[in-house]
Amino acid sequence: MNTELIDQLKSFFDDVVLPKGYDKNIEKIREFAIAAKELKHRVIFITSGGTIVPFEKNMVRFLDNFSGGGRGSSTAEYFLEQGYHVLFFSRKNSLQPFIKNLMYHESDSFFTFLEHDKNTQHVKVSEHYYDQVSRHYLPWKKYIDSGHLIRLDFESVGEYLYYLRGISMELSILGKNLIVYAAAAVSDFYIPLSKMAEHKIQSMSKGLTISLDPVPKTIGFIVHLWAPKSFITTFKLETDDELLKTKSMQSLSNYGHQLVIANLLSNYRDRVIFYSPLLKDPLVILRETNDHQPIEIQIGKQLIQLHNNFLK
Amino acid sequence: MNTELIDQLKSFFDDVVLPKGYDKNIEKIREFAIAAKELKHRVIFITSGGTIVPFEKNMVRFLDNFSGGGRGSSTAEYFLEQGYHVLFFSRKNSLQPFIKNLMYHESDSFFTFLEHDKNTQHVKVSEHYYDQVSRHYLPWKKYIDSGHLIRLDFESVGEYLYYLRGISMELSILGKNLIVYAAAAVSDFYIPLSKMAEHKIQSMSKGLTISLDPVPKTIGFIVHLWAPKSFITTFKLETDDELLKTKSMQSLSNYGHQLVIANLLSNYRDRVIFYSPLLKDPLVILRETNDHQPIEIQIGKQLIQLHNNFLK
Repeated sequence: MNTELIDQLKSFFDDVVLPKGYDKNIEKIREFAIAAKELKHRVIFITSGGTIVPFEKNMVRFLDNFSGGGRGSSTAEYFLEQGYHVLFFSRKNSLQPFIKNLMYHESDSFFTFLEHDKNTQHVKVSEHYYDQVSRHYLPWKKYIDSGHLIRLDFESVGEYLYYLRGISMELSILGKNLIVYAAAAVSDFYIPLSKMAEHKIQSMSKGLTISLDPVPKTIGFIVHLWAPKSFITTFKLETDDELLKTKSMQSLSNYGHQLVIANLLSNYRDRVIFYSPLLKDPLVILRETNDHQPIEIQIGKQLIQLHNNFLK
Repeated sequence: MNTELIDQLKSFFDDVVLPKGYDKNIEKIREFAIAAKELKHRVIFITSGGTIVPFEKNMVRFLDNFSGGGRGSSTAEYFLEQGYHVLFFSRKNSLQPFIKNLMYHESDSFFTFLEHDKNTQHVKVSEHYYDQVSRHYLPWKKYIDSGHLIRLDFESVGEYLYYLRGISMELSILGKNLIVYAAAAVSDFYIPLSKMAEHKIQSMSKGLTISLDPVPKTIGFIVHLWAPKSFITTFKLETDDELLKTKSMQSLSNYGHQLVIANLLSNYRDRVIFYSPLLKDPLVILRETNDHQPIEIQIGKQLIQLHNNFLK
């Protein structure tokens, strides 16, 4: 790692707030890592959802990134079913594995599934939804209780990078058994504490101009320092197809990691492309139009295949 | 209304996207308004949650405002219990009346309340949470089924203002029986479509500068054009106590509406101040430290009192 990058990251960490409860959370992850290592489990560390960039120390406004967390949470389900242990690191209130499948009723989600039983006078899971609720509740409960699924959340880009470093380092004891799957949409820009307004920025008739600093790129740190033996997967999301291939190839050649999964905002649920030094050619994955399964199952299958080869 | 303001608003509407399904939604609101008018019901139109400002036409990044929607949703509950009909206009995925009281388990909310009954092999509402779930589910179901509570959601500041205008005008047939309760945190700034990037703004090593235009102030439009007979309540949220009084008084004198509810970000759940030409002095409302009820019950009581006087 060149010293300029190391200095950039150091000054980033000096200029954002340390997450509350950081030490206690990292302690929990350490226990998870030690248990998985002893039992020789394979582990996937999934980051999911978007980060926010606060504009004021007393935050009223913030910059956010589009990401519901569907990709990360569907992937978590598949890897749990395949026997992996999952550390699910997600944006506060973003989609969660299994729970997300019952979220399409929008804001009412929970209440939609209940009904008032006039005979017993009890509130119960509605007959109509009973199978559906069971299908997602039971595996969730099983994986939570067994410790196969553990979760931690973040909100700001500062919290995200603090934990990305801390978690990667703790899980690095798993060596090649670890997949890092960085699906979160991380802001490229932030406002350092030292440049941040103390109070709410006042509305002015003239409009507003905001200057943001670049967020240091951390993939190189995971590859070279934090979890150098692991299988590292990153994502490229673009809205412009022309840029997608170039930027994906560039990322691989810059960081030398195992996999870039490229996707377009307009069809990210239907088509992704794997770019990897472990593959002779880029691998295009399509969801069939009449396939009711999410594309993350295909992504998961191919990724486990690559992880198997990587472990040989 | 001076013509400069009218032109500003016109160019705002020309430069944001018309919400999908706008006409159909307004039609539903019209039916709600006509039914309430025939039955001489009192109605409160509550706006709740924060608006977003998209940065790109193919949105990847957006500016957001801090607001969970707790104030709006608690207020809705109180007014429903007091016999008002409620139009709850809220940010997509923000807190909803009654449902919100079961949301403190964060991302797991729904599943926390279920259990697997080993005898019947059924998934059911857990014994432990049974009373709590019923307490909030039953009134929700009652008000939804009776049509006392209707809801509509928004996301961008453009959608918000389109509907604010449309809904205010439809509900204005209720005259003085209508309270407008504008609790949403509306962005002061936006990016007009004509200045917006087509694609995702690329990350650059040099950082990023964003210019935003001011969003036109719409309170004056509600007061003078859209729902001139109604009882209009707005909010001032500041982080700096010094500014709070000045800005609240200024708002009343600029717009000539009925009530400004002033609050500080640091203690908005414990203390608000009513500024109103209908009150001799500002009214300070405090939540007692050992009071388990939200401050919105106190706010609601005082507001209904003011509405009663206004109707005399």
